[in-house]
Amino acid sequence: MRRVTQTVLKNDLLLRALLREATPRTPVWIMRQAGRYLPEYRETRARAGSFIQLMSTPELACEVTLQPVNRFPLDAAILFSDILTIPAAMGLGLHFVEGEGPAFERPVRDAAAVAKLAMPDPETELRYVLDAVRLIRRELAGRVPLIGFAGSPWTLACYMVEGGASKEFALVKGLLYREPATLHKLLDLLARSVALYLNAQIAAGAQAVMLFDTWGGVLTGQAYKEFSLSYMSAVIAELQREYEGRRVPVILFTKGGGPWLEAMTDSGADALGVDWTQDLSDARRRVGDKVALQGNLDPAALYAPPERIREEVKKVLDSYGHGPGHIFNLGHGVQIGTKPESVAAMVAAVHELSPAYHK
Amino acid sequence: MRRVTQTVLKNDLLLRALLREATPRTPVWIMRQAGRYLPEYRETRARAGSFIQLMSTPELACEVTLQPVNRFPLDAAILFSDILTIPAAMGLGLHFVEGEGPAFERPVRDAAAVAKLAMPDPETELRYVLDAVRLIRRELAGRVPLIGFAGSPWTLACYMVEGGASKEFALVKGLLYREPATLHKLLDLLARSVALYLNAQIAAGAQAVMLFDTWGGVLTGQAYKEFSLSYMSAVIAELQREYEGRRVPVILFTKGGGPWLEAMTDSGADALGVDWTQDLSDARRRVGDKVALQGNLDPAALYAPPERIREEVKKVLDSYGHGPGHIFNLGHGVQIGTKPESVAAMVAAVHELSPAYHK
Repeated sequence: MRRVTQTVLKNDLLLRALLREATPRTPVWIMRQAGRYLPEYRETRARAGSFIQLMSTPELACEVTLQPVNRFPLDAAILFSDILTIPAAMGLGLHFVEGEGPAFERPVRDAAAVAKLAMPDPETELRYVLDAVRLIRRELAGRVPLIGFAGSPWTLACYMVEGGASKEFALVKGLLYREPATLHKLLDLLARSVALYLNAQIAAGAQAVMLFDTWGGVLTGQAYKEFSLSYMSAVIAELQREYEGRRVPVILFTKGGGPWLEAMTDSGADALGVDWTQDLSDARRRVGDKVALQGNLDPAALYAPPERIREEVKKVLDSYGHGPGHIFNLGHGVQIGTKPESVAAMVAAVHELSPAYHK
Repeated sequence: MRRVTQTVLKNDLLLRALLREATPRTPVWIMRQAGRYLPEYRETRARAGSFIQLMSTPELACEVTLQPVNRFPLDAAILFSDILTIPAAMGLGLHFVEGEGPAFERPVRDAAAVAKLAMPDPETELRYVLDAVRLIRRELAGRVPLIGFAGSPWTLACYMVEGGASKEFALVKGLLYREPATLHKLLDLLARSVALYLNAQIAAGAQAVMLFDTWGGVLTGQAYKEFSLSYMSAVIAELQREYEGRRVPVILFTKGGGPWLEAMTDSGADALGVDWTQDLSDARRRVGDKVALQGNLDPAALYAPPERIREEVKKVLDSYGHGPGHIFNLGHGVQIGTKPESVAAMVAAVHELSPAYHK
């Protein structure tokens, strides 16, 4: 494993804010900032031929990772990849159905299928991801930190059991209620795989990592704690938390996880992502000074004209209020139909308005 | 308009619980209790030829409304219909795409399209619904009360603007952020139409009514209050609240509306539906004694074996706790793959376990 040459990080606002340290303004980045709303992304994607080709070719993944950072004054880059790299490396046959999202040829639906799964070795089966991380770090040359990420064990299990996207999650929740031991076995394997994978990303150069729990919000509170949060906590407990002489912050984001923010503060995460259905002032009151908060502009607010976007940015800043520990972001990924000018207006508004909240 | 012959209501547990009056046990009914998980429904549906034919033929709508009440000891019947009857009557061209749900041939996407819409007259354009209500009341003969319903103005607007189901609601939320006055005009028309429609259902015999706000949960808190809740409150303010000498209770259900329960208690609704992501004890503490609560077993819990279903029913009853004001239900509609035996196990568990909470 090749060690990244340490470079001085010129903009460390994100890392400081994630640790609730004082910053002169609120850092900002955008979930799915490298994506289809950018014409330069669509150009690279067309050149790659397919999404899978794009994400599995380190040079192309690096290129699209840098595109939003080159276009907007963002405070972080996030690795361009997919949350399903681990199940793909487990041999489930990942493919993408146009307009419907990811699907697996060989879903995992019973104890026998779970028993056959093995933890992927990151440096061999997921080497394309780590090569991308190393390349991005070199190309970024310390401009902003690089965020690595993985899907949460529960979210990976949802896709692996359902075989693709789902509205009702009948199969994975059926397993949960009918055969919880089988699901626990799968989640345990996934938690160990995710920890190994994120540690490999950290060793390759990721300066912060984020767990995307896209589907934790479809559970009851009790099931969320038992089948999603406990495995994210297990992942976090295994992570290498210091590297290159700095702490590596961990962000945990459960979409729809608003009811359970208090419980999430005990996960070991430094920061919690918050979707736009939550009031940030309320969320801040509930989590106290235990964690930083990331979010939470409604992605659809970027359909507004620039002056309205500015107002909506101000509402989010007001809602969090004064002091450290806020990372500005959308409450979910940027939507495909968003104009790049709208993203520019949002980022400019954060730069312009947020210093007043840090005096 | 023909007045229903008044019959003595033999089981009024639902109506009393909705008004927070004491009952010897917790009443139970199930969202989408008449539906595809029942073989007798599938048989009637096949005979009807299409879903639209089924819901627009009063005799068939009556037949499927009664099926779950005949099979299980439920405490209410709910009118079999669709939430999109109003936009359909406005001439948007409702049709159903197999596996994708409802769609409109002529979506409403700008001020000009909104200006062309007119309020449907329930007794002419929606007469098939009212005829079904009258027929069901006659056939029920006072066994249990009949619940009427409508989609919330915001939820109807979502379908009307998007033209069908959506994941990101880019079009309707785009309108919200870009052209709020147009959206308000549409919502105002819908609120008046929904009030007229529900009053016609009440006059035809509906003994309680429910507003289904399927998509209120995709909004920010502020937008929810401005674009969904305020219009539901406007509907409720217009409703005929007493009929046949009894109060007609109103249930409001916003899926994903957990963060805003306090605000909903000021809507004028007698009861709030609660989805399974909320803890009922927490919800009860937050709403105080202002409203009753309906819910909230995870629909997927019905994939469990009978003894586990019983445990999950007990958890819901425990969570609400002792005293009046709880109506047992799922936290969302029953899923298509549910076995009727599982529903029977759930209903039996409520009958058996709930009296202990009313002593």
